[in-house]
Formats: sequence, C-alpha cells, structure tokens
Amino acid sequence: AVEPAVWRNPAAVLHGVNDLRFEDVPMPDRLQDEYVRIEMKAVGICGSDVHYWKKGRIADFVVTGPMVIGHESAGTVVELGPNVTNLKVGDRVAVEPGVPCWHNKASREGRYNLCPDIRFFATPPHHGSLAQYIDHPAAFCFPLAPNLTHEEGAMAEPLSVGVHACRRAGVSPGKNVAIIGAGPIGLITLLAAKAYGADTIAVTDVKEDNLSLADTLGANVALLQQPHATTAQVAEALRTALPPFGPDIIIDCAGFESTMQTAVQACVPGGKVVLVGMGQNEMKLPMASASCKEVDLLGSFRYANTYALCLKLMESRKVDVMPLITHRFGFSSDEVTVAFDTASRASETGAIKVMFNMN
Amino acid sequence: AVEPAVWRNPAAVLHGVNDLRFEDVPMPDRLQDEYVRIEMKAVGICGSDVHYWKKGRIADFVVTGPMVIGHESAGTVVELGPNVTNLKVGDRVAVEPGVPCWHNKASREGRYNLCPDIRFFATPPHHGSLAQYIDHPAAFCFPLAPNLTHEEGAMAEPLSVGVHACRRAGVSPGKNVAIIGAGPIGLITLLAAKAYGADTIAVTDVKEDNLSLADTLGANVALLQQPHATTAQVAEALRTALPPFGPDIIIDCAGFESTMQTAVQACVPGGKVVLVGMGQNEMKLPMASASCKEVDLLGSFRYANTYALCLKLMESRKVDVMPLITHRFGFSSDEVTVAFDTASRASETGAIKVMFNMN
Amino acid sequence: AVEPAVWRNPAAVLHGVNDLRFEDVPMPDRLQDEYVRIEMKAVGICGSDVHYWKKGRIADFVVTGPMVIGHESAGTVVELGPNVTNLKVGDRVAVEPGVPCWHNKASREGRYNLCPDIRFFATPPHHGSLAQYIDHPAAFCFPLAPNLTHEEGAMAEPLSVGVHACRRAGVSPGKNVAIIGAGPIGLITLLAAKAYGADTIAVTDVKEDNLSLADTLGANVALLQQPHATTAQVAEALRTALPPFGPDIIIDCAGFESTMQTAVQACVPGGKVVLVGMGQNEMKLPMASASCKEVDLLGSFRYANTYALCLKLMESRKVDVMPLITHRFGFSSDEVTVAFDTASRASETGAIKVMFNMN
Amino acid sequence: AVEPAVWRNPAAVLHGVNDLRFEDVPMPDRLQDEYVRIEMKAVGICGSDVHYWKKGRIADFVVTGPMVIGHESAGTVVELGPNVTNLKVGDRVAVEPGVPCWHNKASREGRYNLCPDIRFFATPPHHGSLAQYIDHPAAFCFPLAPNLTHEEGAMAEPLSVGVHACRRAGVSPGKNVAIIGAGPIGLITLLAAKAYGADTIAVTDVKEDNLSLADTLGANVALLQQPHATTAQVAEALRTALPPFGPDIIIDCAGFESTMQTAVQACVPGGKVVLVGMGQNEMKLPMASASCKEVDLLGSFRYANTYALCLKLMESRKVDVMPLITHRFGFSSDEVTVAFDTASRASETGAIKVMFNMN
Ligand SMILES: NC(=O)c1ccc[n+]([C@@H]2O[C@H](COP(=O)([O-])OP(=O)(O)OC[C@H]3O[C@@H](n4cnc5c(N)ncnc54)[C@H](O)[C@@H]3O)[C@@H](O)[C@H]2O)c1
Ligand SMILES: NC(=O)c1ccc[n+]([C@@H]2O[C@H](COP(=O)([O-])OP(=O)(O)OC[C@H]3O[C@@H](n4cnc5c(N)ncnc54)[C@H](O)[C@@H]3O)[C@@H](O)[C@H]2O)c1
Ligand SMILES: NC(=O)c1ccc[n+]([C@@H]2O[C@H](COP(=O)([O-])OP(=O)(O)OC[C@H]3O[C@@H](n4cnc5c(N)ncnc54)[C@H](O)[C@@H]3O)[C@@H](O)[C@H]2O)c1
Ligand SMILES: NC(=O)c1ccc[n+]([C@@H]2O[C@H](COP(=O)([O-])OP(=O)(O)OC[C@H]3O[C@@H](n4cnc5c(N)ncnc54)[C@H](O)[C@@H]3O)[C@@H](O)[C@H]2O)c1
Ligand SMILES: [Zn+2]
Ligand SMILES: [Zn+2]
Ligand SMILES: [Zn+2]
Ligand SMILES: [Zn+2]
Repeated sequence: AVEPAVWRNPAAVLHGVNDLRFEDVPMPDRLQDEYVRIEMKAVGICGSDVHYWKKGRIADFVVTGPMVIGHESAGTVVELGPNVTNLKVGDRVAVEPGVPCWHNKASREGRYNLCPDIRFFATPPHHGSLAQYIDHPAAFCFPLAPNLTHEEGAMAEPLSVGVHACRRAGVSPGKNVAIIGAGPIGLITLLAAKAYGADTIAVTDVKEDNLSLADTLGANVALLQQPHATTAQVAEALRTALPPFGPDIIIDCAGFESTMQTAVQACVPGGKVVLVGMGQNEMKLPMASASCKEVDLLGSFRYANTYALCLKLMESRKVDVMPLITHRFGFSSDEVTVAFDTASRASETGAIKVMFNMN
Repeated sequence: AVEPAVWRNPAAVLHGVNDLRFEDVPMPDRLQDEYVRIEMKAVGICGSDVHYWKKGRIADFVVTGPMVIGHESAGTVVELGPNVTNLKVGDRVAVEPGVPCWHNKASREGRYNLCPDIRFFATPPHHGSLAQYIDHPAAFCFPLAPNLTHEEGAMAEPLSVGVHACRRAGVSPGKNVAIIGAGPIGLITLLAAKAYGADTIAVTDVKEDNLSLADTLGANVALLQQPHATTAQVAEALRTALPPFGPDIIIDCAGFESTMQTAVQACVPGGKVVLVGMGQNEMKLPMASASCKEVDLLGSFRYANTYALCLKLMESRKVDVMPLITHRFGFSSDEVTVAFDTASRASETGAIKVMFNMN
Repeated sequence: AVEPAVWRNPAAVLHGVNDLRFEDVPMPDRLQDEYVRIEMKAVGICGSDVHYWKKGRIADFVVTGPMVIGHESAGTVVELGPNVTNLKVGDRVAVEPGVPCWHNKASREGRYNLCPDIRFFATPPHHGSLAQYIDHPAAFCFPLAPNLTHEEGAMAEPLSVGVHACRRAGVSPGKNVAIIGAGPIGLITLLAAKAYGADTIAVTDVKEDNLSLADTLGANVALLQQPHATTAQVAEALRTALPPFGPDIIIDCAGFESTMQTAVQACVPGGKVVLVGMGQNEMKLPMASASCKEVDLLGSFRYANTYALCLKLMESRKVDVMPLITHRFGFSSDEVTVAFDTASRASETGAIKVMFNMN
Repeated sequence: AVEPAVWRNPAAVLHGVNDLRFEDVPMPDRLQDEYVRIEMKAVGICGSDVHYWKKGRIADFVVTGPMVIGHESAGTVVELGPNVTNLKVGDRVAVEPGVPCWHNKASREGRYNLCPDIRFFATPPHHGSLAQYIDHPAAFCFPLAPNLTHEEGAMAEPLSVGVHACRRAGVSPGKNVAIIGAGPIGLITLLAAKAYGADTIAVTDVKEDNLSLADTLGANVALLQQPHATTAQVAEALRTALPPFGPDIIIDCAGFESTMQTAVQACVPGGKVVLVGMGQNEMKLPMASASCKEVDLLGSFRYANTYALCLKLMESRKVDVMPLITHRFGFSSDEVTVAFDTASRASETGAIKVMFNMN
C-alpha cells in the first residue's frame, strides 16, 4: 500500500521572548478548496517580526503559543485547491499576508485592512510565512511578471505600506512631501511617493547612514536632524527645504510625539499628516493649531488593494526596491538566528532589509 | 452750499480687556466699487466676541487698537457701489464675515477659509459688524428669502460652522454621529447633522440644561456625563448610544484633551473625528490607536461656500435655528453692556444665542 | 426508520416568454455552511421581472431554462448553516439579492455591484426569491428592526437603487435635484434624495398620475411634460423650477435619448447627470456641450453597501415607502398570474409597486 | 514739456475669416492696480487659434471685431501695477490666459474654469497674447524657474489641459490609461499621464507620424488604427494592449462619435472616460452599456489651478515638452503668416507645436 506523501515543513517558530526555533511544523492533510500550497522562496524580516521576537508582543497582540514568524514573502505554487482557477502549479507569486473575512462593513466598502477578523501572518494567533511551505487563499497570491524576482515579490509587502500611506495622503504632482524617519518603511515610502509623482520630497532622520540611502534613492532633500534641534526648528527646516510653502503632505514613518509635533507645525494649511510609524501611542499635540490650519491627521494601517499595483510599479521599473535589501541569508537554523540578530542590531549592522532566500 | 451727508454710525467698539464702548465710528466717504452699504438689523453675540472682550485676545490675535465687535449679522442694503449688479437697495441680506483675497492657492482651490490674508469681522485688526452701518463686498452678501428674518440671516454664521464640520466629516445617511459639547456650536451642528441625513445623533455634555435643549432640537440621544466619568466610560456610553457599532463620525464642539480622547476611543475603525472646539491647544492623544483604526482627525476652521446653502436650509425649514435664540436686546449703550454680560454668564443666564435687533 | 423532512417549495418559475408557472422547486438537501434558510414573507414585483416574463431577456441576459422570478424580498429565518453566527432562527430579514465573489478588483475596492461573477436573483441563470423558501448567505440578510414590516424589508431593494444613484451624484444640502421619470424607481429616488438633504427636488414625467404621487411624496415641483415639448423646453422648465441656477444633479430614471438630452441641457456647469433608467441603449447626446460645462454623465448599476442604510432610513421614518405599494396579493397560482398582469399594465391599473404577502 | 511714453505694440490681430493682420494695437494709458505689463517672449499656436482664423468662430464664440490671437504665452515683466507685490520687473513669467471673476459658485468652489464670466485670451471678445506687450493680472503670472525657458512657460498652457484631464480621471499608479488622438493635446496628455504615474499607457491615432512621436515620448503602446477598423475592433485592440483588464481610464483627445464609442466599449467596469477633444458635438453612444458598467463620462474644459504644478513638472524634468515644438518663427508680419499656415497644414508640415520667439 502506498503511504500518503508527508510534507516536511521546516519553519522559524517563535515560542516566546527571544525564543525563535527552526523546527518542523505540520501541514494540513488537505488543501482547502480555494487555497494553493506555496513553496516559499524569499521572505524578508520586518521590524514587527523583530519586535515579537524581542518583546513577545505588539500592543494588545501577545504571543501565547508557538507561532511561525514572517509576513513579507513570495514563493512558487506547488499544488492547487480544487476550486482554484486563477493560478497554476509553477506560478511564481507574491503572497499578500492579510486575509479579511468579507462579512463586515469595512471590508465590503473596500477597506479590508480594517476587517476586525482579518487573519494576518505572524500576528498572534496566526502563523506567518517564514516556512518551507504555506497554504494560502489563491485570491491573495499575485503572479510575478517574468522580470520580477521572488525577492521583489516579498518586497511588495513593505512597498504596500508606503503606497497605502501615499494614497491616503493623496500624493500626486503638485504636492511637496516630507517623510520623517528613513528606516525601511520611510525609504520605501519615498520610492512610493516618487512613483505617485510628488513634486519635491524631503526625508529627515537623526541617522546619517539612512539619510545617505534616502539620497541615493532619489530624495530631493535629505535633512539630518541635529541632536538638540527643537521640533520648531525641524519644522522650519522642512518648510525651507520644500519651497515655496513647505510640505503639503507629511508622512511620519517614525511615529513619535516629537515627530508628529514637527509634522503639525511644518504642514501647510489644508495639508495632510499621515501617521505610519508606531513609535509611541500617547502624544501631546497642538491640536487647536492643527484644526485652525485644517491640517488633517490621518491614520494608515497596513494596506488594501495594493499588491497588483506594487508589482506593476516594480515590473515597470518605476520603483526599484533592490537597493533596500542589504543582507541575504539562506534558510537554516543557524542562518535564521544570524539573520534576526542582524536585523535587530540595524544601527550597527546597517541593515535595512534582511532577506531569506530559501533553497 | 449743500453739505455732504454725514453718516452717523454708532457701534460697539472694543478698546481693550473689559472695555467695550458704544460710540460713533466714521464711515468711509466713498463706497468702494464692488461694495454695498448695509444698515444692520440683527447681530448675534458669539463666544469669540465675549472672549475678546474678557481677554483681549484669541491665540495670536491680539486687540491692540479700537475694534468694532460682532460677526454674526444681517441687514438691509442702503447704497450700492458703482459696480454692484447682484443686489439692489432695500435687499435684506445675510453678511458673510470673512472676505478672502483670491491670490493664494487655498482660496483658488475652493478653501478660502484658509486664505492667509482673509479679512474676517472682529478679528484684529479688522472691524466687526455690530454697528449701525457697515460697508461690505456685495459678493459676500446673500439675499434673504421672504420667509426668513434678519435674525435667521445672522444665524447663517454659526450654522455655517456646523455645516462646514458636517461636510468635512461626510455626514450623510448611513452614518452615526456623536457631538461632544452642546453649547451654541454643538447645538447648531446637531441641526446641520440632521439636515445632512445622519442616521442617529447622540449629543453629550456635562451640563443638563444644554442637553435638554439638544433633546428638544431632535438629538436621538442626549447623554449627560457624570462628573467623574473617565474618557473610556464616556466613549463606551457613546458607542452604546449609537448601535450597532458606535459613532462613525464624532464632532467635538468642546475641544478639550479629554473630549478628544473620548472621541478617538469611541470612534469606529475608519471613522472620522472633526475638531471644531478650541477649548485647549495641547492635547495628549492615543495616536497609534487612532492610526491603527484609521480614525482620521480632521480640523474644521470656520467655513467656505456655506452661506447660500445655510439660507436655503432655513428657507426650506429643514433647519430651524430660532429655538437657539434665548435672549434679545436693542442696540444702545446700556443694552450692549447687558447683552454681553448675559452672554458671558451663560451658565447662570441660560443664554445660548444673544441677539441684537437694531432698527 | 425516520424519513428525512422534505421541503415543499412552491415558487413562481419562468419557463419562457409569457410562461410563468406556480410549481414546486426542489430545495438543496443540505444548507451550506454560511447560509440560512428563509421562509419568504414579502416579495415585490419589479419592472425587470415583468420584462423577463414578457420578453424572456434583458440585454444579453436570456432566460434559457426554468428560473424562479423575483428579487425584492424579505422573510423569516427558519434554519442556520453551521457557521452562521450573525442571525438566529426567527429573525426577520431583508434579503440582498446580489452576492458577489470577492476575487475581483471591483469587489475588493467596495464596488461589488460591478463584480463580473455576481449571482443576482432572477438574472439568468440564477434563481430569484419569489418562492416559499430560499437559501441565502447569512452575510446578505439584514435583520429588520421591530418597527419594520416584511414589506418594508422587500422595499429595501428598490430603495437601494435610489440611494446608490444619490450617492453616486453626491446629493446633499446645497444641491438642487431633478428626477426624470416618476415610475417606481423615480419615486423612490425622490424619497432617497430627500433623505440625503437635497435643497429642492423637481420630478418630471409625461404621466399625470405618477406626478401626483410625486407631489404627495414631497417633490417640491412636479412638472408634467406637454406632449410635444422639445427637450430644450423641458430643460428650460426644469431650470426655472429649480432656482437660482437650475439642477445641480439630474437623475434620469426613464433613460431615453430624449430624457438624457434634456438632462445635459438642463444641468448647471459642473453638475452631474446620473443615468439609472434603461429605456434605450444608443443615445445621440450633445457631448461637446456636456464636456465644456464639465457636466459628468455617471452610470448607476444596482447598488453596493446600501441595505443596512436603507433599513435605517425606514426604521427612523426618514423614508416612508408604504405609499408606493399600490397592490397586494397572496401567493397562489392564480394570484401570481393576476399580480404580474396588474404590474404589467401599470398605465391602466395605476400600479406602482405590486407586493406579494406569502401566507 | 515731456511727452508721455507711447508704447508701440505690434500684434497679430484677427479681423475675420482668413484675415489675420500684423498691426499695432493701443496699450492702456495706465496699468491697473493689480496688473503687470509683460513683454511677450514666446507664444505658441493652438488648434483653436487656427480654427478662429479659418472659420471665424468656435461653437457660439464668434469673432465680430478685431481680436488679438494667441493664448499660450510667456514673457518678461516690464512694469508693475501699484498693488503688485508677488512679482518684480525683470521676472520671467508664464501667463495663465483665463481670468475668472470670483463672484460665482463654481469659482469659489475651486472650479474657476467654469466661471461664466471668465475672460480668456483670444476667445471673443477678449484679446489674446500674440503681441509685443500685454497687461495681465499679476496673480495669473507664474515665475519661471531659472532652468525653464520662455518656450516652456508657453507650453504650460497645453500641458495644463493634459494635467486637468488626468486629474479629473484620477490617473495614478494602478491605472491603465488609453489616449485616443495623438495631436498636440493627446501627446501632452501622454506626458501628463506619465507624470501622474499611470501603470501603462496606450496611445492610438489614425496617423502614423503622430504615433511615432507618441512612441518617442514614452507611450507603452502606440496603436495605429487600420483605415476600416470598427470601433469594436479598436476597443478590443486597446484592451489587449493594456493587460490584464484593459483601460481603467480613457482620455479622448480627438472627440468624435467613433472615438467615444470606442472609449465606452474599451473601458473596464468602474472606469472613466474623459472627453477633451471637441471634434464633434452630437454623438450616438451606447449609454445603457456605459451605465451598467458604471463607466463615467467626464467632461474636461481647460483647467484650473494647474500653472504652478505644470511649471514644477517641467522644472523637475518629470515632463519634457520640448520635443513637441516642431517649428519656430520670429515675430513679424511675414512670419506670422507662414507660422499660421504651417500650423494649419499640420498633416503635410508635420507640425505639432508652432512657436513664436519674439525679438
Ligand atoms: N502603519 C503600518 O501599517 C506600519 C507598517 C509597518 C511598519 N510600521 C511602523 O513604521 C515605523 C517605521 O518602520 P521601520 O521598519 O522603518 O522602523 P525603523 O525603526 O527601522 O525606522 C525608523 C526610523 O525613524 C528614525 N527616527 C527616530 N526618531 C526620529 C526623529 N525624531 N526624527 C526623525 N527620524 C527619527 C530612526 O532613526 C529610524 O531610521 C515603525 O514604528 C513601524 O512599527 C507601521
Ligand atoms: N472651528 C471653528 O471654526 C469654530 C467656530 C466657532 C466656535 N468654535 C469653538 O467651538 C467651541 C464651542 O463653541 P460654543 O460657542 O458652543 O462654546 P460653549 O463654551 O458655549 O460650549 C461648549 C460646550 O461644551 C461643553 N463641555 C465642556 N467640557 C465638556 C466635556 N468634557 N464633555 C462634554 N461637553 C463639554 C460645555 O458644557 C458647553 O456646553 C468653542 O471652543 C469655540 O471657540 C470654533
Ligand atoms: N440602474 C439600475 O440599477 C436600475 C435598477 C432598476 C430599474 N432600472 C431602470 O430604471 C427605469 C425606471 O424603472 P421603473 O420601474 O420606474 O420604470 P417605469 O417604466 O415604471 O417608469 C418610467 C417612468 O418614466 C416615464 N417617462 C417615460 N418617458 C419619459 C420622458 N420622456 N420624460 C419623462 N418621463 C418619462 C414614464 O412615464 C414612467 O413613469 C427602467 O428603465 C428600469 O429598467 C435601473
Ligand atoms: N477640452 C479642452 O479644454 C480642450 C483644450 C484644447 C484642445 N481641445 C480639443 O482637443 C482636441 C485635440 O486637440 P489637438 O490640438 O491635439 O488637435 P489635432 O486635430 O491636432 O489632433 C487630433 C488627433 O486625433 C486624431 N484622430 C482623428 N480621428 C481619430 C480617430 N478616429 N481615432 C484616433 N485618432 C483620431 C487625429 O489624427 C489627430 O492626430 C481638439 O478637438 C481640440 O479642440 C480641448
Ligand atoms: Zn512588514
Ligand atoms: Zn461666530
Ligand atoms: Zn428591482
Ligand atoms: Zn491652447
């Protein structure tokens, strides 16, 4: 009698604070009707992955049981559920990590990132994608054009964050944009803002290295903040950097009280401040000033309806994410450890995006 | 030889803190080309008028020289500048108090309330309209339909504030609305929100009297806050008051740190918080929570393109502002004093809108 | 041995042109996981139902096999699929007739009415809802508030058409609205436009009876078109009826070349014409004139995200659809015949909405 | 006694059909308060200039008296009106040709291109700008950055047409765009659509030469229409050219019945068709099909709030208009004749943009 094939599936599994293990996780016996099985090829490490590893939680999401980490990923389809028609075995795909239910108002109105029941990779209790194989709804897998690599597919995830922020803000020709914070998210938002046609883009950070990358990536102005600069001074510097009136749009990819204070002060009347960074929750802000200028403070949480668009941006070479990938690793027990360590000590290692290339 | 007619023009002139005088102000010799001269008939007292009287300043606007007070006004046209074609002598008009220049981006894009050079009645150094006569651009005078009184014309000003807030928020059928603060602005915003078709409207305040007026004016829920209620408790009460999900839109017409904290907590994901009240500038707010819910914090400053619309709302009886007028005075030295005193002690006098009827 | 319960399910089944039969249709053995079984209580007859009956097709949709007719419906839940949590047996619900797949761009962006794979009641090859029982996804069943009848639940369907058109056009205070065609759809659009706060609404038709109902329902102007009036004359009459500038928004609920010509001519610069009526496909229109005025011609197809909103409009009594129901029938072979005949000869019978009340 | 300076002002003056004269026009004695006097340096010839010359009218605008022609222009400020503060003598400026009054609703709402009283160069009865000197409101003169030529300043006018069309349509990343007609306006709209970040752009025309320029300017697909192609065939070809679904946005820069039929057929559900071209007024279109797909037909008339944006696009080299300038002439009686002749016989001369360089 023939034994059923057994999938061996090594994965990076977080068991608790500082306890990340490379071990096999079981695969479901049966692929669901609308799902595909994907052999993962490229998975990036995100700040949130590192955060769960180091702290075991983000806000109210607490790691309580073993959880596969990782959510920036691409792979190749190896099996199709019976109802899948949009993909075939062998397709190379970028994997959108958040799957909403369609039963709530937000999802039905097109804002499925706000679905209260969304299942998002590596957000407890849902497993992530840093594994040899994953099963995923075919409708959230996006084929890669021939000129795109699996790494680029994985980068569609952080690029989506930048694109969503730009869309919320209405970045377009005629708008001066300031980006605060030049980490991976700030830098990729810079790329997105350029693709959306922003007039002039200033990026500011406290770290020189990141700013020089911003410069390479095409920021019109890369503004290093002096250690003791006040928020008023930084705001003034941003206004000067973006003539004639200052920033119409500010995307805060750091997310601290000080950066948001800067943003509100720098922004032109009628402008928009988008808060992407999650550096801090409670912030003291000059709200009456903001209101009198009708500067709107907009949230930006993950993304919806961005994947096809992001792949297109990369396929057409309007956006080149490759310079952001600073470190690459294979997928083994040792390499997982080193890779996460590299990502977590970015100030020393200069890591922007750390990427796994599996087999 | 015939002497030129001399206009005697008694007005309520603010000379400094607590120094409001009833005295003649000179009229220009010649009416400008596009202006009309208006005999004022009804002028309301606004919180900002009282504030200038009591404090001599609002934010960076400081009363340095004598300034006619008042900006909620209507009157009758008594003379036309040579280029005026849209009005005729005898027309009863509501007077829009803010006149933008059209040379800046904001004005040209339809947001002339953000014009940096706007001349707004009774905002230093510009004179207001609590005078026997004023000169005003014809293009900012709006004829009253036969069924509207001068008082209603004056009320187009605060109604404009409410309408602008509702428009910024997108109040419409399908939206639950919470209004925080049931002073004159909160109450008139309630009327505006009803006219915009809000599903259900909850109004909350700490004062019982104001809430009972909210109830009379058609609030679905009038929620009295207990003295020691936490912001979380008030937020929870608002959510319960507005089933099934809570407020989609919150219009804060008080404008304190505590009310905005309540607003951010109460608001549904994807909702909007509009800040109208100017109770406080610096506020500590849970911004990461707001961003994760994509709750947008929108400013609302005065209004643009509201006057014709507001007059129509009153003409068609979709909005009835008359119950808001609690006190009426004639226009004399004594009455000005008593009227301002009545307005300034609203808690005791029960004043909502104090109105001058000049004849 | 106990026999499984067998559902007897009489339904109105269209077999071909003029061939509508009252006969049993089989029910699925097993209720799907996310579905509920509903005992229908009220089903309205729509123009499209009559059209399929009389012509066997609408545009490219052709009735080829037996198809249950009907799509305006409400009932009571009698059984729950195993995964259903939002409803319980005994719930009275309005049934949204179109169920999209969520795999396409339009659906995910919130416009699921444009889903190319939508299954819509009584649109070949999908069965409708004029039956004793139907199975339907729980997520497309909306509970009726205690003060709403099943008939009102059924009316949520045509009301949705009116609401969707109003939303597309941006009906709100400050807008004058003209509605062309005072059939069931035009009249219910009138009710929707009022709920959205339109300033003034003019309704025009060629039939006096329908206009008098428009008048009863609250049209500000009910304009009877003279038999030989040119489109320019009708346009002029609409402009006069809606001072000071004419209609900002025109919703064409007739949908003929002549009515759209009227609409383009009557509309103010910068206004919007929404085409709801499907009277005719090819239309000769003054497109350069429309473009020079930037009058936008917007399509409006069914609706998305309207049901909860429509029920709320009725629950709060902002909209009263009951006057539109002119004829009522029980659910039997004879009554189905008479009811459809009544609906199809509306000019003689005066039928606006013909409604079945089952048992 | 000193004689007042007399301005000699040669201009190209249209007296009637085919009657364009090079002759002096008087200058006003006194520069108005908010105006500047500009020495013109570059003026382009537009299709409408040629049309007035050849036909004496466009739609209802009829040339009845002598009218200076030209409206695409840039120059250098030689004198300031007493109230002008935003410019100084010697400034090089692009001249926005349409000056609205600010007294109407459309202007105040930001759509001043729809101002019924707009004074637009070379639209009877208003003089144009093909003259040695013109007086113009300073607020409609936009300084040229050092790296921009006067020619580029003049090209801000047609570029504005393209930008306005793109803005109306919402061109952005994620959108496939088809442009019908590759004349000067179609080609410059291509440049605008690229600057707005369109995914993929297909341009179609019946003329091979224009298409090869489209190709040079960066169209992803340049689609030559076969002489006897049906509109359905062209639509199909556009869909194929813009995978995966076809054009989300179609900008018709030809403006014929056939091109708009093509547009409606080609457009994806939920897409937008913008009509820029004025080839024809009456068009027979499949409006019910358009409505069922919710394809919106949007007008686009001139532009508002585009000049600063267009100059910025050229200054930052996101848009390079220079390849569109195919012919240059000096400003003399003979050259005016030859230049207009060259422009009017574009099929033979290959003219796209014919430009005057004065002195
Ligand atoms: N909203 C979302 O959906 C979403 C998605 C992904 C990441 N995030 C958040 O975005 C933020 C950025 O992510 P990242 O991966 O780039 O993080 P990161 O920590 O690598 O980058 C943050 C950058 O901000 C800079 N910075 C810190 N203080 C600053 C200041 N005062 N002024 C200017 N710059 C300052 C840092 O030097 C650093 O370069 C994080 O808070 C992350 O949690 C949000
Ligand atoms: N944005 C604008 O353009 C604009 C225009 C006019 C007025 N305003 C501002 O709007 C605010 C309201 O104006 P008003 O004339 O109605 O003032 P008001 O002082 O009469 O009314 C404020 C109301 O808020 C209530 N309130 C105070 N604390 C509260 C709390 N914690 N929770 C709930 N309610 C609370 C008060 O009891 C009072 O009834 C003022 O701050 C005013 O400056 C803004
Ligand atoms: N877009 C959608 O999603 C949608 C949904 C439902 C119905 N419809 C369409 O809407 C239209 C209206 O539906 P209905 O059920 O009210 O149909 P109906 O035939 O009962 O009503 C049409 C009305 O238009 C009037 N009319 C005809 N010619 C006119 C003219 N020249 N000027 C003014 N009025 C004129 C008729 O007298 C009649 O009262 C139909 O074409 C229907 O197919 C569209
Ligand atoms: N809406 C506005 O504000 C505005 C402003 C400027 C110009 N326009 C109009 O825009 C249009 C284009 O201007 P232009 O200067 O480029 O004119 P043009 O005549 O030079 O260009 C039109 C192009 O369309 C092509 N064409 C004609 N029939 C076609 C078809 N069936 N399919 C595809 N292509 C076809 C022609 O070959 C030509 O290349 C004109 O009608 C003009 O009046 C409108
Ligand atoms: Zn990430
Ligand atoms: Zn006021
Ligand atoms: Zn129907
Ligand atoms: Zn032109």
